[in-house]
Amino acid sequence: MRYAETDQMGVVYHANYLIWMEVVRVEFCTALGFRYRDMERDDKIFLVVVEANCRYLRPARFDDEVVVHARVKSANTRVVQFEYEMRLAESDELLLTGWTKHLCVGADMKAARLPDRYRAMFGLKSSA
Amino acid sequence: MRYAETDQMGVVYHANYLIWMEVVRVEFCTALGFRYRDMERDDKIFLVVVEANCRYLRPARFDDEVVVHARVKSANTRVVQFEYEMRLAESDELLLTGWTKHLCVGADMKAARLPDRYRAMFGLKSSA
Amino acid sequence: MRYAETDQMGVVYHANYLIWMEVVRVEFCTALGFRYRDMERDDKIFLVVVEANCRYLRPARFDDEVVVHARVKSANTRVVQFEYEMRLAESDELLLTGWTKHLCVGADMKAARLPDRYRAMFGLKSSA
Amino acid sequence: MRYAETDQMGVVYHANYLIWMEVVRVEFCTALGFRYRDMERDDKIFLVVVEANCRYLRPARFDDEVVVHARVKSANTRVVQFEYEMRLAESDELLLTGWTKHLCVGADMKAARLPDRYRAMFGLKSSA
Repeated sequence: MRYAETDQMGVVYHANYLIWMEVVRVEFCTALGFRYRDMERDDKIFLVVVEANCRYLRPARFDDEVVVHARVKSANTRVVQFEYEMRLAESDELLLTGWTKHLCVGADMKAARLPDRYRAMFGLKSSA
Repeated sequence: MRYAETDQMGVVYHANYLIWMEVVRVEFCTALGFRYRDMERDDKIFLVVVEANCRYLRPARFDDEVVVHARVKSANTRVVQFEYEMRLAESDELLLTGWTKHLCVGADMKAARLPDRYRAMFGLKSSA
Repeated sequence: MRYAETDQMGVVYHANYLIWMEVVRVEFCTALGFRYRDMERDDKIFLVVVEANCRYLRPARFDDEVVVHARVKSANTRVVQFEYEMRLAESDELLLTGWTKHLCVGADMKAARLPDRYRAMFGLKSSA
Repeated sequence: MRYAETDQMGVVYHANYLIWMEVVRVEFCTALGFRYRDMERDDKIFLVVVEANCRYLRPARFDDEVVVHARVKSANTRVVQFEYEMRLAESDELLLTGWTKHLCVGADMKAARLPDRYRAMFGLKSSA
């Protein structure tokens, strides 16, 4: 964790974990086979966060290495939900569990259908 | 909302609302009759966030004035839960509902009892 | 200053002062008679930061009230430079001096001329 | 760069580069042979930022890979100055040049001498 992410209690400020979740979602998409930024740029599809939940079990500290696991918990043509677990790399202690719910919207910020190829990658059957 | 708080979708980045909740908790404590920083400094009592939840209903944008309402939803000698509502000042549209749960800890980061005078202010009966 | 703005040294993290400068620039524009966001939205004119300098003299702490003074140091049709001074409200102690240099660009991120009415407000003679 | 680091102009918000400089300083110390956090924790020595300067040449965007070069520009027993260059990994285009000046302080936030072993690593002769 970065120094900038700590607060005066000497631990990582709690809002920063939402940023880490986002970093991991982007990596998750890359692992699935697409770049999140290309989905935004080329398909004008955005997965906006409509709900987020974090349970903070232990604090992380500056320069701790944190391992973040993410998975798609559920998904349909309009809503994708991710789940997260963060652990200290050194000890495997669980730091946080959380989830985020995302609505698929177009450039006009209105609800849109998730295009087939992304749905397939998120583990959905294609709309055949 | 600040320019720094926007992201490339042109709206306020979702993690920033947790920061706004914290800003409002501090003001809430002041309205109750104490400064949050004095509780930390003088009593070595910290209200660490152990869970947080946000439902994002509409996005805020740069330079929008946002009104945040906070209240104590529940409290006991160890845990305090706050609830929040954020609305656009101009239109009164609801932007966000959320809550945070806080554990009372001492300087050693171990669970502690919330001192009587704070409990009274948070709407609890004093431990007489 | 916000809790989120502190770091583990118990003081405000140095990058946050750049954000405060931006907050004050926006207020400065409002005081001059226009909203910064309207300049972006209606005129597609953006004042991008091309250089920034901060001298940190004393640290600010959580919940300190900080007074920020800003002024236009120099301006021409393409570049505007702001200067800042931040002081503790309580003691008037100087915390920071700094400046930012801004290039006027259009929506295409290419250099543009600052429209006359903004130039007049920034203290320049109109291009009559 | 992270999504959280962008602003509504679609580019990385300028204050975030100071955070990247700090991330790189920490890595730089590791490369020199010590962990920055151990210097703080074990020696109670802190390198506080007393001045910072950034020249922004081109904007970075979300998901751009950025390569940051840092070096010690000058150092004595009380002050260390770092220089930075950031480039787009893909094209090698220069995004930013900057520097930060750090004062060596103790836990009391008063000026202190940089211990010999760190001075040696920062390229100074040991005080023999």
